[in-house]
Amino acid sequence: MTESIDHRHIQQAPEIEPPREYTLEGLLDMDFQELETLDSSRLANTPAYVLASFLERLRVDDRRIILRKVNETQASEILAEMDAEDTAETMGAMREWRAVKILEELDLDDATDVVGELEEEDRTRLLSKMLPQTAATVRDLLTYPEDTAGGIMNPEVTTVTLDASVDQAIQQIRKLRDYTEHLHYIYVVDEAKHLKGVLSLRDLLLARPNDAIESITKTALKGVCNALDDKEKVALTLSDLNFSALPIVDDENKLLGIVTYDDVIDIIQEEATEDIQKLVGAGPHESIHDNLSYSITRRGPWLLVNLLTAFMAASVVYYFRNQIEALTLLAVFMPIIASLGGNTGSQTLAVAIRSLALGEIQDSESARVCIMECMKGLANGILIGFVASIIVWIGTRHTGFSLVVFIACILNMGIAGLAGAFIPIFLKRMSFDPAQSSSIFLTTVTDITGFFVFLSLGTWLLL
Amino acid sequence: MTESIDHRHIQQAPEIEPPREYTLEGLLDMDFQELETLDSSRLANTPAYVLASFLERLRVDDRRIILRKVNETQASEILAEMDAEDTAETMGAMREWRAVKILEELDLDDATDVVGELEEEDRTRLLSKMLPQTAATVRDLLTYPEDTAGGIMNPEVTTVTLDASVDQAIQQIRKLRDYTEHLHYIYVVDEAKHLKGVLSLRDLLLARPNDAIESITKTALKGVCNALDDKEKVALTLSDLNFSALPIVDDENKLLGIVTYDDVIDIIQEEATEDIQKLVGAGPHESIHDNLSYSITRRGPWLLVNLLTAFMAASVVYYFRNQIEALTLLAVFMPIIASLGGNTGSQTLAVAIRSLALGEIQDSESARVCIMECMKGLANGILIGFVASIIVWIGTRHTGFSLVVFIACILNMGIAGLAGAFIPIFLKRMSFDPAQSSSIFLTTVTDITGFFVFLSLGTWLLL
Repeated sequence: MTESIDHRHIQQAPEIEPPREYTLEGLLDMDFQELETLDSSRLANTPAYVLASFLERLRVDDRRIILRKVNETQASEILAEMDAEDTAETMGAMREWRAVKILEELDLDDATDVVGELEEEDRTRLLSKMLPQTAATVRDLLTYPEDTAGGIMNPEVTTVTLDASVDQAIQQIRKLRDYTEHLHYIYVVDEAKHLKGVLSLRDLLLARPNDAIESITKTALKGVCNALDDKEKVALTLSDLNFSALPIVDDENKLLGIVTYDDVIDIIQEEATEDIQKLVGAGPHESIHDNLSYSITRRGPWLLVNLLTAFMAASVVYYFRNQIEALTLLAVFMPIIASLGGNTGSQTLAVAIRSLALGEIQDSESARVCIMECMKGLANGILIGFVASIIVWIGTRHTGFSLVVFIACILNMGIAGLAGAFIPIFLKRMSFDPAQSSSIFLTTVTDITGFFVFLSLGTWLLL
Repeated sequence: MTESIDHRHIQQAPEIEPPREYTLEGLLDMDFQELETLDSSRLANTPAYVLASFLERLRVDDRRIILRKVNETQASEILAEMDAEDTAETMGAMREWRAVKILEELDLDDATDVVGELEEEDRTRLLSKMLPQTAATVRDLLTYPEDTAGGIMNPEVTTVTLDASVDQAIQQIRKLRDYTEHLHYIYVVDEAKHLKGVLSLRDLLLARPNDAIESITKTALKGVCNALDDKEKVALTLSDLNFSALPIVDDENKLLGIVTYDDVIDIIQEEATEDIQKLVGAGPHESIHDNLSYSITRRGPWLLVNLLTAFMAASVVYYFRNQIEALTLLAVFMPIIASLGGNTGSQTLAVAIRSLALGEIQDSESARVCIMECMKGLANGILIGFVASIIVWIGTRHTGFSLVVFIACILNMGIAGLAGAFIPIFLKRMSFDPAQSSSIFLTTVTDITGFFVFLSLGTWLLL
């Protein structure tokens, strides 16, 4: 297992070596014609995530030009860093023997993601050429929904049985594929694979060769997840417990796989991206580099919803059209009330969505949270409404008008705070995603109530 | 190091044991009077993050009631999970000997965060009572800005020198404090602490006791960060490389500490929360459980900015007041154009902010990204504007009006897409946070251009 190493090389500090890798900036500055001229050995030194990020910006054919220059192992590392969808598209277009080889090099959880994204035809074709056992595992993993622990777990787990010795455990680790970098814990199971305990690498290292595994096993297990648990729950559990991996079991406590910290980092990044993008009705997985048609199909439908809700707000204004005709200043100040309401609500919405994502809002607290946010809106309404009414008075010298602005600010910002907390909490309670386009629903509420409150008050007090 | 263990206990599957811990829901349902009656042994079994989440919702005095029931080690685990600010407030109110003991139990990076948040007076007092060496390290760590690698690193690193043997390395690990759970890599250094290479626990486990460390050391180091690197850069590097820890060095390549995956998970969670909350001008670290005055001081100032920008939008409407008086329908359809522009811009904004956070937008791409987002806005404008103009025509049978709505939609949504990409990219280029209140600036742009485009077109084509 120990490699032969050039000793002169070791003495040399790493920063003395000339830069032998491509940077993303450098790659992006290149012409498409230059892709063919990329240097294989420099590519081999370039981190997989840099090449992945570059390849994601290219068309499938150009991706293949570059992937032809690296070996299957590096290709699998690069493809593992890309979106499963992009990877599947690339692999579907590759020569079959190479695609199969790469699929077999991938970690089983990554291979499953890719196979899951392949066109039906490619899927059958490639699975039939893979090692039967690997193919069987992949098929098995595909049965778990994508957003569950089972859908993200890696079934390659290092296990030992309770009656093993330390030496036998070390033999087990030796058998692992050489490039298994992520060795976190060794799980202790019985003959039927039921999870019994866990062993850290450190305890194993410090134990004597003939010690029984039993004597160094921790049996009070925390953070065991079921394969059908939501993947976001798994991510929160791992990050709460600060573990580097969690074991995933079935209903009978049989060990099925593990989820590791690097998967969790990906889930958290992805969820944060989803939250912020779904909030405004953009595509949850959209990147700024997605093309026109992808982005439009993701955003367009929500803008259509927005169009309909905007007509609802407009119909409130329409209802008051005679009053506006009589006192045009009402139309002038309308946008101020609507804008303040919209932003007050958005502030609450953002805080509520993150608190929900971090598991900070318990069911029993929902009502209290909504009331509290309404209070925060009202309090800010008093402050901002006061300033606004002074500015309006200075501009118009119209006491009634400035009073209307003051009261409308307070009421609309209070309602906005309430809606900003209520909408995501309600969506979550109904088992929808609390972020999904809640910003669009929110601004509808604040526009409608804002126009209604302001125009009614104006009608009542000024006309 | 091996503990004596009750063997009957090991045979028992963990799920058979009765629940001996408190849940967050259970704790939240309690009366304040019941806090005194909490059972110490159940508290000892409750995960630290649950108690931390509960304590953060309590006042300082109530926190002390609960912390008195657990020992210093558990108290330090709970406090490590709380916000550094809350922890500092709690420790400032504790008995001195206990606070000092807890500070010494904390990991040095956590202890530094807490000491950094203490009142000046408490800081001096507690540091003077701590072990001189620990206090010196904490003072040293406090010199790094909070948002740098140095500000989050843990200086307790396991190191061996190049000439050591495997056996000596294992002795080093044995010396570590028993509760150091996070053993990731062993770093290889020279006599002057210059970083020379890295060794995984697995390689160490599989090596023979008399092997030289040199023979199993990896010297081609990736992901070495400087102590002054931005902490978000460190987080992205770790997550790109899928390492469980990164070494932090000074300008002379001396090893100063490590940043581990669990810190990175916290940074990513925190950054996602900051992004989404700052976007709308809420407090970056605000939680839904923060009290009225905290939330208002964080949100109020941005609402004041919003008030001023809303007056700018209102002044555009004011400029067209005579036209609105002549054709009140203009005021009715104004909110539709503004709302569509606002949401189109927000979609781009959200995608751009996440892409910036994930390091997906290179400087050289900025212009292309802005143009592309403008195109996406225009394309959606054609689609949505078409639908809108049909609805307007059905409602009003007024061809001119529906033409104005159509053109105004396209123009405003194109400008909104451009602004949604330009604002965060520009803020980042100017070294501001791209998320900071960009939603407020964006809606100002979309309101002003929306009103202006729509009312000018209306004036020109309809009056």
